[in-house]
Amino acid sequence: MSLRLALRASRRLQPVQTPIYRQNGPLLPHFYPKTLSTSRYLLNNSPPPPKPVEPAPVIVQVRRVGKWRTFLQILGRVTLATILTTGGLVYYMAWKDRHPGEQLPHDPSKKTIVVLGNGWGATSMLKTIDTEDYNVIVISPRNYWLYTPLLPSVPTGSVDPRSIIQPTRYITRHKKRRVLFYEGEAMAVDPEKKTVTFQDTSPIHGEGGPSTINYDYLVYALGAETQTFGIPGAKENSCFLKELWDAEQLRSKTMDCIESAVFPGQTDSEVDRLLHMIVVGGGPTGVELAGEMHDFVVEDLKKWYPELADRVRITLIEALPNVLPMFSKQLIAYTESTFKQNKIDLLTRTMVQEIKPKSVVVKDPSGNKVEIPFGLLVWAGGNTMRPITKDLMAKMGQHQTNKRGLTVDDHMVLAGSNGTIYSFGDCTATSYAPTAQVAAQQGAYVGRLFNQLAQQARLEAELEELKRSKAELHEIDSVSKKLLKVSKYKPFHYSHQGSLAYIGSDKAIADLPFLNGNISSGGVATFLFWRSAYLSNLFSLRNRSLVMLDWVKVFIFGRDVSRD
Amino acid sequence: MSLRLALRASRRLQPVQTPIYRQNGPLLPHFYPKTLSTSRYLLNNSPPPPKPVEPAPVIVQVRRVGKWRTFLQILGRVTLATILTTGGLVYYMAWKDRHPGEQLPHDPSKKTIVVLGNGWGATSMLKTIDTEDYNVIVISPRNYWLYTPLLPSVPTGSVDPRSIIQPTRYITRHKKRRVLFYEGEAMAVDPEKKTVTFQDTSPIHGEGGPSTINYDYLVYALGAETQTFGIPGAKENSCFLKELWDAEQLRSKTMDCIESAVFPGQTDSEVDRLLHMIVVGGGPTGVELAGEMHDFVVEDLKKWYPELADRVRITLIEALPNVLPMFSKQLIAYTESTFKQNKIDLLTRTMVQEIKPKSVVVKDPSGNKVEIPFGLLVWAGGNTMRPITKDLMAKMGQHQTNKRGLTVDDHMVLAGSNGTIYSFGDCTATSYAPTAQVAAQQGAYVGRLFNQLAQQARLEAELEELKRSKAELHEIDSVSKKLLKVSKYKPFHYSHQGSLAYIGSDKAIADLPFLNGNISSGGVATFLFWRSAYLSNLFSLRNRSLVMLDWVKVFIFGRDVSRD
Repeated sequence: MSLRLALRASRRLQPVQTPIYRQNGPLLPHFYPKTLSTSRYLLNNSPPPPKPVEPAPVIVQVRRVGKWRTFLQILGRVTLATILTTGGLVYYMAWKDRHPGEQLPHDPSKKTIVVLGNGWGATSMLKTIDTEDYNVIVISPRNYWLYTPLLPSVPTGSVDPRSIIQPTRYITRHKKRRVLFYEGEAMAVDPEKKTVTFQDTSPIHGEGGPSTINYDYLVYALGAETQTFGIPGAKENSCFLKELWDAEQLRSKTMDCIESAVFPGQTDSEVDRLLHMIVVGGGPTGVELAGEMHDFVVEDLKKWYPELADRVRITLIEALPNVLPMFSKQLIAYTESTFKQNKIDLLTRTMVQEIKPKSVVVKDPSGNKVEIPFGLLVWAGGNTMRPITKDLMAKMGQHQTNKRGLTVDDHMVLAGSNGTIYSFGDCTATSYAPTAQVAAQQGAYVGRLFNQLAQQARLEAELEELKRSKAELHEIDSVSKKLLKVSKYKPFHYSHQGSLAYIGSDKAIADLPFLNGNISSGGVATFLFWRSAYLSNLFSLRNRSLVMLDWVKVFIFGRDVSRD
Repeated sequence: MSLRLALRASRRLQPVQTPIYRQNGPLLPHFYPKTLSTSRYLLNNSPPPPKPVEPAPVIVQVRRVGKWRTFLQILGRVTLATILTTGGLVYYMAWKDRHPGEQLPHDPSKKTIVVLGNGWGATSMLKTIDTEDYNVIVISPRNYWLYTPLLPSVPTGSVDPRSIIQPTRYITRHKKRRVLFYEGEAMAVDPEKKTVTFQDTSPIHGEGGPSTINYDYLVYALGAETQTFGIPGAKENSCFLKELWDAEQLRSKTMDCIESAVFPGQTDSEVDRLLHMIVVGGGPTGVELAGEMHDFVVEDLKKWYPELADRVRITLIEALPNVLPMFSKQLIAYTESTFKQNKIDLLTRTMVQEIKPKSVVVKDPSGNKVEIPFGLLVWAGGNTMRPITKDLMAKMGQHQTNKRGLTVDDHMVLAGSNGTIYSFGDCTATSYAPTAQVAAQQGAYVGRLFNQLAQQARLEAELEELKRSKAELHEIDSVSKKLLKVSKYKPFHYSHQGSLAYIGSDKAIADLPFLNGNISSGGVATFLFWRSAYLSNLFSLRNRSLVMLDWVKVFIFGRDVSRD
């Protein structure tokens, strides 16, 4: 409505006050003279005063404001207030993020930390470290941090690819001292000469070849690559789901299968093949992907490909006896029953033997070889060491012999590096699961470690200075006390925040270590918890807002079925 | 604030009413007895009544509601109302779009229309046609419609790629009778046999090879492909900006150039090369892209690559004496001055001779050959016929001899097809510019034409029936009158809605044919008009909302500099 209308409406809402003025206004003058006259009459017997006119009874009309109305009024104000404050706040915070100030230049007198990688571990290390005391250089083939937990939502379009990435420069540019970022791939580490060699492996690059730089400290957080167990055809004939481009490619291929199945002149068996999506690997990634795929088919494909949607089949293949080993028994059961409801075929105890372009050969629980045709096969398998990691281990000889990954002590120091190389996350072999949660906590720990080292160095210098200048004993004493305190380095301690997984049709499962016992829960409520938890784990306001927007978009407009 | 707090606040806002009750309540009883007693006294000389107590003067406090407060109250209500209504409306409309009902099946007794392409022309034809009277089959290699005018906003991230596409099934699924869509590329048209042969050219496809189908009517709207004038290296060493994937690739390459320039060990000249973006072609696409690139550099790169952003150079090369020939002189001048301010080098009267991988050879106005190094070259050249169109022309012999494209009459009927083939848009050679606007109007015209044909057929049948059953003359008469009216086919008339172009730094230009004379305008106000016009030209609520959201996103969070 127009503002004038609104004004009129608002007047109507207010109690009627005018009659009250009219009544009380005249009342007073009319009142006092009367009594005065009476008293005068008592003194001299003058004729009685004229009978005073009886004033009409005072009727005060106050139109009550209805409960419902009041509620709406308040709701209106609250809404407005909320919009203004949140809107303003978001804009201000985003503005601050977008306007990083001046940074100190690199200082040759400071030690240089070279960080390899910008995944969960490296990024949370970068967030924690105080760069005032170090020259930090970050090297990674991707110039952004990827929020891997939401990766399975990308292939179906539940979340936009760019909503779950954050340019690493958004972090480095906000540091006190300038942090250099080079988009390149680490080729080799020389722990003797303390150098790293890296190369720009992207399609476009300048004339300069590989570059080699020195480090005082190396943070080795290159993660792992997808484990295919040497299964023939695994690399060639399946899609991975590790990097953002994997997810985008997967989205395009999914729609390609659908459109190819619609194409005229296909045999029935060929249509069934094209509409069969296989996910190998029953970990969170595989399970969440299967769940998302199911939602996509039911909520979107059904509408736009009515003749086809019911023929789409999703199969999850897992070599172990059950999916999601890290979850409690009842949650595994809940997941499997949900999959049954959602018509997702779950093949456990099934070993993949070979992956052909259009079919996969598996050994079923009873040991028989079966060939299953597919339109699309997603390999959501485990981790294996990157070549550069193997190379580094070879260079470090007997210090590094673990087949699973790098050996580090409980301060994340690489065995055999005499404190010059720190490593954590999926490239290391520790007692912890190779999860984002572990890597993030390890990264933050190493960041704090560097801050502590810097403080120790500062105090040592101070102590030297005091001793040199023959300062009073108590001064020296207090500083050395401080130094003693700072020199104590607590080992890394992992605090498990719980495990979460989305399993499709607005259901999620959660294992949360609250109080003493574990709290296991599944269902729609857990799904909402899953969403809020994932949101809060995103590093930046930007990512949070974008992912939230994506969820609203899908809620309102559904997922996009364009083959982009 | 909590609801209770809000309630309290709202009470505080209302005028104080309680004192009024207190004052007027007791007033009445105290009032009447007094006058009564006076009258009694006059009758019998009893002692004078006690002097009446003078009531305290009545003070009515009404706290006035401040203008500002009222305004906020109203604003609150209005906001709430707006949110609820728009929110509800959008959700409802989106819901309806997402839930297309049942459709009639294909009916062998009806004529079959095969539509080649789903660009501006074909899509608006699909929107207009009443499919009840036809079996419609759409064939295109893309399963979505692309909003080309916003394509130059994609490479810089001002707009998300998926915000400007709309799956063609979102349109066909809402038609009365089922419309088939096949994702495939038309290979050949046989105007004699009236057949179309097409193939699934996407990476994934079934075993069936090319497919051939018959048509009664063919709608040939395949558009054109990018014209490179046979310049060596144009196809190999430049990026086009015609399809969505071109724009996405361009985005990735832009960031690749930036990151490669940051990579250590580059010579200064190499850095300058990598940071030099060249746009060839001074049409709206080229100009808008240059403008967007400039915005990206100034508003985003400066923040994240402070040491680099100032070295980025943008050059626009145009063979003609000026850019944007379709605009008025003053707007061209305005554009060129804006480019000067924005430090975009404008090379007019400059002919591209050869495009090498890292440099372009041009002939400057004075005829000298110059070699300009670049990191990225975008070819935003004109149109040329697709091979299949040339093939069709060859088949139609002397009817089709125009080198520029297909010859159609002013009913969009392909010359030499005896009314079986309709064609429009960029694949035809007409007196109109090859713009989206023209194609869209032509498509809608053909759609109406088909509806009219159907109506004519219906009336003819009716007339036959009446004559056969020897009906009364006046009946026959009225029907034949109707028939006569329907049989008149108005030729296509193009109504120009005006030309718009974005030229960077929140400025746009517009040539609008209002009233009699043209209205030319440029500047920030025009920019807002440009935005609203582009929004309103998007076909669907979904696209409008998504693009609007993208603009808000960029306003708040800026553009993403991740190289995805």
